Amino acid sequence: METLEVGLSQRSYPIYIGERLLENDILLNREISARQVLIITNEVVAPLYLELLTKALGKRDQHSLILSDGEQHKTLSCFSSIIDKLIDHEFHRDSCVVALGGGVIGDIAGFAAACYQRGIDYVQIPTTLLAQVDSSVGGKTAINHAHLKNMVGAFHQPISVFTDISVLKTLIPRQYSAGIAEIIKYGLVLDESFLEWLEEHLEALLALDAQTLAFAIRRSCELKAAIVSEDERDLGQRALLNFGHTFGHALESLGQLDQWLHGEAVSIGMSIAARTSCALGFISDADCERVDSLLLRANLPVAFQDLDPDKLLEFMQLDKKAGTEGLKLILLKQIGEGIITAAPNDSILKSVIGAKTII
Amino acid sequence: METLEVGLSQRSYPIYIGERLLENDILLNREISARQVLIITNEVVAPLYLELLTKALGKRDQHSLILSDGEQHKTLSCFSSIIDKLIDHEFHRDSCVVALGGGVIGDIAGFAAACYQRGIDYVQIPTTLLAQVDSSVGGKTAINHAHLKNMVGAFHQPISVFTDISVLKTLIPRQYSAGIAEIIKYGLVLDESFLEWLEEHLEALLALDAQTLAFAIRRSCELKAAIVSEDERDLGQRALLNFGHTFGHALESLGQLDQWLHGEAVSIGMSIAARTSCALGFISDADCERVDSLLLRANLPVAFQDLDPDKLLEFMQLDKKAGTEGLKLILLKQIGEGIITAAPNDSILKSVIGAKTII
Repeated sequence: METLEVGLSQRSYPIYIGERLLENDILLNREISARQVLIITNEVVAPLYLELLTKALGKRDQHSLILSDGEQHKTLSCFSSIIDKLIDHEFHRDSCVVALGGGVIGDIAGFAAACYQRGIDYVQIPTTLLAQVDSSVGGKTAINHAHLKNMVGAFHQPISVFTDISVLKTLIPRQYSAGIAEIIKYGLVLDESFLEWLEEHLEALLALDAQTLAFAIRRSCELKAAIVSEDERDLGQRALLNFGHTFGHALESLGQLDQWLHGEAVSIGMSIAARTSCALGFISDADCERVDSLLLRANLPVAFQDLDPDKLLEFMQLDKKAGTEGLKLILLKQIGEGIITAAPNDSILKSVIGAKTII
Repeated sequence: METLEVGLSQRSYPIYIGERLLENDILLNREISARQVLIITNEVVAPLYLELLTKALGKRDQHSLILSDGEQHKTLSCFSSIIDKLIDHEFHRDSCVVALGGGVIGDIAGFAAACYQRGIDYVQIPTTLLAQVDSSVGGKTAINHAHLKNMVGAFHQPISVFTDISVLKTLIPRQYSAGIAEIIKYGLVLDESFLEWLEEHLEALLALDAQTLAFAIRRSCELKAAIVSEDERDLGQRALLNFGHTFGHALESLGQLDQWLHGEAVSIGMSIAARTSCALGFISDADCERVDSLLLRANLPVAFQDLDPDKLLEFMQLDKKAGTEGLKLILLKQIGEGIITAAPNDSILKSVIGAKTII
């Protein structure tokens, strides 16, 4: 097992990465001292892992809430049902919420923990690769509103994160690849040598080789933790982690329900961002092809169809990354180094997006 | 005009106290730089002050939302309507919410600002005495849930507070007295000399004498700010400010809708807390009578009827101040000095509460 610290003074917390952590009663009981625990999970994860976790958490006032699966349930009404549950079982301030699931579960359970009685502890047990390398680390919690992603949320750090790589065996390949998109992101914006390592080890990663996987997750979390420590509230450099996300969010919001997994939308978004970087003279055509090639090898999409580029552009103006000063984008200054910049003029964006549209 | 600073390092902010601040365009425009502003107010305050404020805020992208008046509207659905409004007008991260109203408006508008895009700026312009001396200072925001007060919320500090004492002229006397309850609270738990000053100046305060009022508000905010600076997230000494509130919340929640104003429930709660302190030997009968006498002079209630004491006690167990360790109470060690203590056994509480029930 590997341990990593997210350094945030009083709000610092450990990330444990290893096999069969879900069943590790000694570790779990050492880290979670609350006598009242509510496990939030979903209908897909519950039959696989809820019983194991419940057993490991041992004798305490344990409850669980099984939500429907999918982004479309990350709503205020679902949030409300979690609060109802906490109230029904008379949860106090010193109780703990446990998020057992992917990003949707982590986001909504984290937001409920952030708000219940103005904030109680929560723990992340991410069960998708994407959540393990991204959403479970850094304390961003949220729900969607009016079909807009993450419009309502809070910064609320977990007290610990348990990243059990064994659970990835039950993940469908498409979701696994979506997680790899975020791993590639870290290489692209922060660390070219990590990107090179990924290019070399992609097959082993796709084959779920335990050692390769543990390193890829550890390095991703390390890169993310370093940025979060410096910019918890996303006012500066943390925006780099949104590489591919401004385009990605727009695709997710405008696409058909569940058309794209988050990581897939981010993959297309990264490819668009790379092309935009190229159009502005930052990186070369060959660099763009290098980006696309790695994404495609990871079975990720790099283009989209059935969507009006103008609509996509219009939508992006309301993205959280847009201030009244106008839209900002995360681009590549070079491979391994992202930059935060004002969006180029619409005609450049339109032409890049247009070229990414499969007719 | 007086200025007071709430010291919270990067989240420090000023409280301005004075006459006609609502119309003070120079001050308002110096403090609120956002280009997009949403004023949240209610149907009672809007006809009186919305136009004045809108005029003073000058040329910017201004919008307003007028909510129904009353605690029963501090709900998730009302919160949702504020978020809808922010989305409809494409509010960005660097926009600002302005809470123009009493505690209900401040709490719900503050919570919406805390959550919209994970937190945007907000400003408090409290229009009731209670909000001016209590809820507008300290960053506690919340909504009610399942008829339980403030079960869902956040700590989110305003960027500034404008306390316009001129608006108190339009406040109904009952609400004005409810505000005095919180002022008396500060004297009781934190500062006996302030309590003595209140005993001497109560008539001038009830007559809205500007100088007396400005001092009472200033001293209250000062006492509260000192505690908030030390214990923003209410993990220690801030609990002292809940003197009278554990009983008070229970009364508000179990009483008929709008039977008690918050300050009235707190007044009864303080009287019960004083009697409990006496039953435990901390203060004398004469001290209790001194407490009741000042509250009664301020036209505040010190007893209740039509409510089962057992139910009240049971309800208090779910109060936010109760951990799994059991209920804690704020009592008086002596007049001017509160203490946080484990609740005494139920029979003592029952007998005190029973004696406060008018049959």
